[in-house]
Amino acid sequence: MIKAAIQGERGAFSEIAAKKYFDDNIEILPCYSFDKVFSSVKSGDAEYGVIPIENSLYGSIFETYDLLLTYDFKIQGEINLQINHHLIAAEQISLNEIKNVYSHPQALGQCSEFLKNLDAKIIPAYDTAGSAKNLLNYDYQYSAVIASKEAAEIYNLKIIKSGIQNNEENFTRFLIINSEKFNKELTSPKTTIAFELKSIPGALFKALSVFALRDIDLVKIESRPIPQKPFQYRFYVDLIGNENDEAIKNSISHLEEISLSIKNFGSYQAGNTFKS
Amino acid sequence: MIKAAIQGERGAFSEIAAKKYFDDNIEILPCYSFDKVFSSVKSGDAEYGVIPIENSLYGSIFETYDLLLTYDFKIQGEINLQINHHLIAAEQISLNEIKNVYSHPQALGQCSEFLKNLDAKIIPAYDTAGSAKNLLNYDYQYSAVIASKEAAEIYNLKIIKSGIQNNEENFTRFLIINSEKFNKELTSPKTTIAFELKSIPGALFKALSVFALRDIDLVKIESRPIPQKPFQYRFYVDLIGNENDEAIKNSISHLEEISLSIKNFGSYQAGNTFKS
Repeated sequence: MIKAAIQGERGAFSEIAAKKYFDDNIEILPCYSFDKVFSSVKSGDAEYGVIPIENSLYGSIFETYDLLLTYDFKIQGEINLQINHHLIAAEQISLNEIKNVYSHPQALGQCSEFLKNLDAKIIPAYDTAGSAKNLLNYDYQYSAVIASKEAAEIYNLKIIKSGIQNNEENFTRFLIINSEKFNKELTSPKTTIAFELKSIPGALFKALSVFALRDIDLVKIESRPIPQKPFQYRFYVDLIGNENDEAIKNSISHLEEISLSIKNFGSYQAGNTFKS
Repeated sequence: MIKAAIQGERGAFSEIAAKKYFDDNIEILPCYSFDKVFSSVKSGDAEYGVIPIENSLYGSIFETYDLLLTYDFKIQGEINLQINHHLIAAEQISLNEIKNVYSHPQALGQCSEFLKNLDAKIIPAYDTAGSAKNLLNYDYQYSAVIASKEAAEIYNLKIIKSGIQNNEENFTRFLIINSEKFNKELTSPKTTIAFELKSIPGALFKALSVFALRDIDLVKIESRPIPQKPFQYRFYVDLIGNENDEAIKNSISHLEEISLSIKNFGSYQAGNTFKS
């Protein structure tokens, strides 16, 4: 069975994304850091990495953007996951018995409305699924964690309350990455490239014109600082189209005229959205 | 004396930025969160807030970008600070006596090369200056923290080693904010605006054209997700020029034609760079 590396413990949202993407035909390799996900794929310990790239409330995840560039990987696919948070405990206890709630700070923030009405201490932990894994190490008769339904199942815990997030419109977009380039049949292709522009007036405007002049849709732009060049930026863009399309090829040639460097992460099928 | 609210404890890099900006004629109001900085300025507890908006290695600071929009504040000024990290202890001890090093995870990461050669346990703390403040609560004969020179002075601690960061090119850009709009004489003006675009083809290209067509330099663009509109973005741009310039006025009118909303944070003097 093929193996996918994820950041976080078993039951993490990245595991759910990986299983949805690969129709459950996948073995999960949990990694303690994003860098470890990339290095596991590079070393061949896993065939794929499944990494979050942005969340619809929080924004882009800088670390995975930067690692995409550091490792010379290709994007093989994309999947969107609606994030559903659950209050989970070791036993079926009532809400007013709960004295401590553990989870990752971002999950705690996303459930702040629910937590406000709970008379419990809020304790940040390093990971959502990790806090479920560790629940029995806490004062577990009085403690709960916020994590996924899958984390409750994996660690044999009870769901006390489902869907406790403030906002239903909470989606995380994941990329499926590895180091090889496949020839894929894509019915709904997207292409991601990164570029560093020359210092010329209106550089970014000119860069976007190479796509606009060819009617290529740009659905996302992200800027990342360039180390050693304070307050200069590398741009990442997601384009609608296949890198083999004449228009995209021409736009990249055109972009080369005004860029110091370009990196093409390849083309992949635009992601479907699943509920977690 | 006027008062400036900062996030973090006394001795934080925000305090250094505030003092450089106001030539030391300022009283510091330490706040435990960025939101508290904004609310302190809104309530009048402080005249100004001094907030980090981006770091040249890490990138933009999402939370302060989002709070700028939430609170209806104006940008009054800008300052860049070169970040200098110091290893600080309670007494003059030698490096091989140090068993624990505490600091904010970002500071620990920025000093990773130095820490690699130290036989000490690396312990993340909530704040750089805060870890200096708390040093005497730790096992202080064997512990050190990473923080600013000012933090060492304020908490009466000793600098064991200076300039321990991996990368000299480490700058943080701070904004000086409050709720009023001043008429300022600006010799080197910048203007920051945010806008949400209509869903039209090539929307971002058209938005940037309103500046490029008028030879207005765009020095920074940032995108932030719009809550309730998954994977749609609001853009923030920093422009060279004064909001009272004919060209900037016209560009904003032009931008209104293709925007759902525009927010003008005002004009301010481009920031000077200081060493910390």
